[in-house]
Amino acid sequence: MKIHILTIGDEILIGQIIDTNSAWIGQQLNANGGQIIGITSVADDYEDIQRGLAVALEKSDAVLITGGLGPTKDDITKKTLADFFKVDMVFSQSNFDWITKIFKKFGRDTTPAHRAQCYMPSNAVLLHNKRGTAPGMWFNHGKQVIVSMPGVPHEMKYLMEYEVIPRLTETFQSDPIAHRTILTVGEGESRIAARIESLTNTFPKNVKVAYLPGLGRVRIRLTAMDKDEVAINTLLDDLQTKVVSVIPELVYGYEIDTLEEIVGKMLVDKNLTLATAESCTGGYLSHLITSVSGSSAYFMGGVVAYSNEIKMRQLNVPASILEEHGAVSEATVRAMVTGVLDLLKTDIAVSISGIAGPTGGTAEKPVGTIWMAVGNKDQIKTRKINLGKDRVRNIQYTGVSALNLIRQFIINL
Amino acid sequence: MKIHILTIGDEILIGQIIDTNSAWIGQQLNANGGQIIGITSVADDYEDIQRGLAVALEKSDAVLITGGLGPTKDDITKKTLADFFKVDMVFSQSNFDWITKIFKKFGRDTTPAHRAQCYMPSNAVLLHNKRGTAPGMWFNHGKQVIVSMPGVPHEMKYLMEYEVIPRLTETFQSDPIAHRTILTVGEGESRIAARIESLTNTFPKNVKVAYLPGLGRVRIRLTAMDKDEVAINTLLDDLQTKVVSVIPELVYGYEIDTLEEIVGKMLVDKNLTLATAESCTGGYLSHLITSVSGSSAYFMGGVVAYSNEIKMRQLNVPASILEEHGAVSEATVRAMVTGVLDLLKTDIAVSISGIAGPTGGTAEKPVGTIWMAVGNKDQIKTRKINLGKDRVRNIQYTGVSALNLIRQFIINL
Repeated sequence: MKIHILTIGDEILIGQIIDTNSAWIGQQLNANGGQIIGITSVADDYEDIQRGLAVALEKSDAVLITGGLGPTKDDITKKTLADFFKVDMVFSQSNFDWITKIFKKFGRDTTPAHRAQCYMPSNAVLLHNKRGTAPGMWFNHGKQVIVSMPGVPHEMKYLMEYEVIPRLTETFQSDPIAHRTILTVGEGESRIAARIESLTNTFPKNVKVAYLPGLGRVRIRLTAMDKDEVAINTLLDDLQTKVVSVIPELVYGYEIDTLEEIVGKMLVDKNLTLATAESCTGGYLSHLITSVSGSSAYFMGGVVAYSNEIKMRQLNVPASILEEHGAVSEATVRAMVTGVLDLLKTDIAVSISGIAGPTGGTAEKPVGTIWMAVGNKDQIKTRKINLGKDRVRNIQYTGVSALNLIRQFIINL
Repeated sequence: MKIHILTIGDEILIGQIIDTNSAWIGQQLNANGGQIIGITSVADDYEDIQRGLAVALEKSDAVLITGGLGPTKDDITKKTLADFFKVDMVFSQSNFDWITKIFKKFGRDTTPAHRAQCYMPSNAVLLHNKRGTAPGMWFNHGKQVIVSMPGVPHEMKYLMEYEVIPRLTETFQSDPIAHRTILTVGEGESRIAARIESLTNTFPKNVKVAYLPGLGRVRIRLTAMDKDEVAINTLLDDLQTKVVSVIPELVYGYEIDTLEEIVGKMLVDKNLTLATAESCTGGYLSHLITSVSGSSAYFMGGVVAYSNEIKMRQLNVPASILEEHGAVSEATVRAMVTGVLDLLKTDIAVSISGIAGPTGGTAEKPVGTIWMAVGNKDQIKTRKINLGKDRVRNIQYTGVSALNLIRQFIINL
């Protein structure tokens, strides 16, 4: 089934709120054989809603409207829908009883605005909203369906889950659709595409490949649609395995995994503890690591050694190394790993020192020159990366890159 | 000027990414006298883009297109635009040179995909993208304008800020508009509104007040529009002074200041050095502090004391305090400040210990209980805050709250 989402509300257009509803609806419908073919956002305005509805109906089986239903919205959405269907507004006693019941529970009386709120287009099938006062409305329009829901996320989600999706899947039975998402780190979008191109060229026509780049990471998404749900899932499992076999060292996870979670799981599995010694990233790496719930099981702590004095005093980096090689050098990050292993008594430690910028570079070591190291008592691996001049981006990219260095180190243990 | 945003990409429709670009664009244009009249999201599909473009052009002065430009997108967007304008695609040597230069810097060669990526509709004015390989494209279409930008947020933001907004405001001149943004921390939106309500009620009709809440912070934006640019600026300066005089202790800065920059400036002005001792925030506070360019002048470093062992061994927190009061207690954060001052020899130190969640709470200390302290050799100030169950939000809110604690401590020195 093809769905068009129509969001109503000035607050989205002026950027006061981010439309997270549409992404949630997209995910839910995809998992239920639906497909969002477009999203249209309009203001709380009679004409704009009318035009938006016309556009949304063009190629879709159903239009899902969110927003424009609150008590301060002047009921423009409902009025527009009633006019669109050429029907009158009628009073819903059952909805008014519901509102009265809720307000009684909180020891409050209803206001005239609540009574006004209970007038609905006469052809609406009301969908009971257990999370709020405005019901959902279901309209049949020839072979198409129009559904209107409040924009408040938890109310919309309740209605979608318990009322709208069950009715939609019953009304529009369509070909199942399935996805697989492969998460990679360490190569850019175009290089990954080049490496797996000869494989993806052999994929059947009903399989689409998409590359979704993020900072230092690329998600590869495989999508298939077919009548036979078991067959497309078997097919996607097979194609996913084939893709991974071409770029095994780049793949860190699947679907909604995060790199910091995966590294955490690897540490738990191998019963290893971790410490950090950060200079230019200033605590960003330890922040990434500790953003994972349960990270206290393997992350003991870290030192943010921003000044050279602290590198020497806390991490025992020899003054001679700092003088001879500089703070941004392979020798320094090696000494930082040794120093923090000794100080915090963990199994593994990781260190970073670089020039985050935008100033502080030299001809020999320009802004964006970053050294990092990971090691245990037996061995230390180092890596140098060269980034741009954007400080925040450099810090974030380096954090991801260091997580990947830890991941590779544990794999090779 | 009336703007319609057209976002292109399957990833938004299937809900894999949330469209944060549109909200950002909405905010920026609002601040520059623009108005988003609609947002349309379509798939990476020739026909869908064509239809979306037609809808977007209906009532707008300009259409801003985001997404659909990456090297693996098959250039559908550019092809659709070239066909729409009935022009050929031409090779941009300057863009290819730029891509080659970037890749050389990273020690890599370009691929044939990069060369293909450099074909552009012949009528496009290329907008140089310093943050990526795909340039922005500016098209004149009668009295209307169409702009195409990559969907990657930091690339889009760069292009908007440095290329698109200046050209748009030049092309579509309207009455001068002026803004003042007052940055506050420490109170919620509704409480601030209540405190300044009797003042803002006296504001002239052409002045709008908007509250833009962020995590722990609220921006108060005053906007005025009038033919007389000097008059509205004088008026806004006066009104800004009046607002600040009602809530002086909440105001940390103006316009694009950040709290971490302001704290940094205060430290530089007073010639003070700072260290951190973090438990539950895991390095997030030191990350905030070091995200400021030049922070090495005052930030010496920190200890992420995630385990109690490190609190004791590195920060000399007495075992008796941890046993008697627990790690999340006023006594512990006091001892952490004393310990890190002693260890890293700075003028001021700040410490944090709490239960970030979502698990780990008790009846007495539920998830979201956070203690923090700031001090020097003479005095220590502490604060307790009670937050919710969202781990990432708790960490971020605590970081902001700790920065504010440092700010207040320095003010009172």
